[in-house]
Amino acid sequence: MKLASLKAGRDGRLVVVSRDLTRATDAQAIAPTLQAALDDWERVAGPLADLAESLAHGAAPSFRFHEHECAAPLPRAFQWLDGSAYVNHVELVRKARGAELPSRFRTDPLMYQGTSDSNLGPRDPVPVASEEFGIDCEAEIVVVTGAMPLGADAAAARAAIRLVGLVNDVSLRNLIPDELAKGFGFLNSKPPSAFSPVFVTPDELGDAWDGGRLHLPLLTAINGRMLGCPEAGEEMTFDFGALIAHAARTRPLGPGTIIGSGTVSNRDPDGSPGRPVAEGGRGYSCIAEQRMVETIRYGAARTPFLKFGDVVRIEMKDRKGHTIFGAIENRIEPAGM
Amino acid sequence: MKLASLKAGRDGRLVVVSRDLTRATDAQAIAPTLQAALDDWERVAGPLADLAESLAHGAAPSFRFHEHECAAPLPRAFQWLDGSAYVNHVELVRKARGAELPSRFRTDPLMYQGTSDSNLGPRDPVPVASEEFGIDCEAEIVVVTGAMPLGADAAAARAAIRLVGLVNDVSLRNLIPDELAKGFGFLNSKPPSAFSPVFVTPDELGDAWDGGRLHLPLLTAINGRMLGCPEAGEEMTFDFGALIAHAARTRPLGPGTIIGSGTVSNRDPDGSPGRPVAEGGRGYSCIAEQRMVETIRYGAARTPFLKFGDVVRIEMKDRKGHTIFGAIENRIEPAGM
Repeated sequence: MKLASLKAGRDGRLVVVSRDLTRATDAQAIAPTLQAALDDWERVAGPLADLAESLAHGAAPSFRFHEHECAAPLPRAFQWLDGSAYVNHVELVRKARGAELPSRFRTDPLMYQGTSDSNLGPRDPVPVASEEFGIDCEAEIVVVTGAMPLGADAAAARAAIRLVGLVNDVSLRNLIPDELAKGFGFLNSKPPSAFSPVFVTPDELGDAWDGGRLHLPLLTAINGRMLGCPEAGEEMTFDFGALIAHAARTRPLGPGTIIGSGTVSNRDPDGSPGRPVAEGGRGYSCIAEQRMVETIRYGAARTPFLKFGDVVRIEMKDRKGHTIFGAIENRIEPAGM
Repeated sequence: MKLASLKAGRDGRLVVVSRDLTRATDAQAIAPTLQAALDDWERVAGPLADLAESLAHGAAPSFRFHEHECAAPLPRAFQWLDGSAYVNHVELVRKARGAELPSRFRTDPLMYQGTSDSNLGPRDPVPVASEEFGIDCEAEIVVVTGAMPLGADAAAARAAIRLVGLVNDVSLRNLIPDELAKGFGFLNSKPPSAFSPVFVTPDELGDAWDGGRLHLPLLTAINGRMLGCPEAGEEMTFDFGALIAHAARTRPLGPGTIIGSGTVSNRDPDGSPGRPVAEGGRGYSCIAEQRMVETIRYGAARTPFLKFGDVVRIEMKDRKGHTIFGAIENRIEPAGM
């Protein structure tokens, strides 16, 4: 089934959405919000699935579903842990900021906790105080977990994945070097992120979902021009089970924890770290990667970071070309506008 | 007024507690949980204060208040941002792990986002998988904010402080060096924290609260033996207004955001970085500081980190010797027990 939160109050109003994202039906009688549903998943997952079935057969009262009326599926979440599971990306971005790749990068996942009490809806503007911050997008896959005990292993973690979706993890590249030099990780450099209109249960993904990875291309465009379409499954060094287990090593995870894959990234088949879409490559899921490849090729980055007014669009389509999660489409705006 | 959450469900049951922490009265008719109260503070703060007044005059139905029945005041919070506002502590702990102090440490606060979806109650055990992790406490002051817009300044931030409390920010010292070397900050090294039985409105603190700092000693004991009693106000380099404004530089803060001061720490009047309580000094709010001072004095640390069975007690008393927030008292236990 596919779930969304229409904008309403701080936590949205839960609706079940049709597979083709054209119709929705109110789920208030089952759970008022997605967080409430996740808190009580064992009891409500069945009734929600029944409602999705009724919607599919025209047997439930329904209304037109508009992606722009959506809040993030979890407008505020108690935990947002963003991994960095595509080592190609980690290697490139660190090169781009002149940092060394840690020696354990293939066995010990990178992960930080980001802000999640003001998650942006799929069509919300992204407010930033200054273009000088080096505004970038990062297109990623996310999963939402059930409750996980401290010490849960990767197999248990895979079984606790309730929902899958997309995120635009907004990053302020020019704030990162100074912030990381302080040693406490990201804070100011990672403002609120925007999420896809719907999150879906793994069964909606068919054989594209292998239990821990999503094997489909992730499409990112800036101002209507394709930035990248890397395949999200094949080069994901740490699957979601490994990422969740890493987080649970010293903490339990509450229901509704959002785990991010990190920027989806592919090496080029010719062995280079990535080729632009314009040259037949799979491109990039963030501008920083493109700039790094330009630096390697031409000695300097040519593509600027995002400016006010620029629009980032992130989407994933199934093998028949149908959108799975709807589209994230965020305009960058000056904060306070 | 003083507010607590009795253990009930995921989010506790809101009660108003008498100033002397002996009686409590149910606040369900006003707000079911502290998060709900904070979400709607403008409407409910008055009725809650009226209820506190009735309780004080014996005019409200009340029951005996037991600190061990408390969950954390916010059993799960949407955001927990822990600063490190006592530069003496920052300097010592970084020395202890062989790290340099960043040059901007007196103007640019350190802050990270920690896990807050499984906050521990004041008397809950602290489960840790292994003593080898280097288990430590950190006694800190916390504040809870109302909603803050992106870009709020320190003055606006001070005005948005709704509640004040204490935290035991559990730290796994031996996991920190490897984790920070990866560049993404703390994750596994910062498991869930335990909070004081009650959080209080700033007016409860009288002139000990100057709007951004709490000028009273913070008492920490391990197994009944005093570890430290440093004064929390005088050496707080960044006040809570500055800490909140730092967080709000690139993100809005939702109501119920918890901001931590970092480990309370004093230099010794003789200019040394701190003297043990046994020698008439103010001691320490974490074991790492004590070990660092031992290293400076004797060439090696003498005090071990916490073992299973050890009990950490953290409390603050007003100038008349009355407990303000009740006591945090956590026993360290093997995870899975």
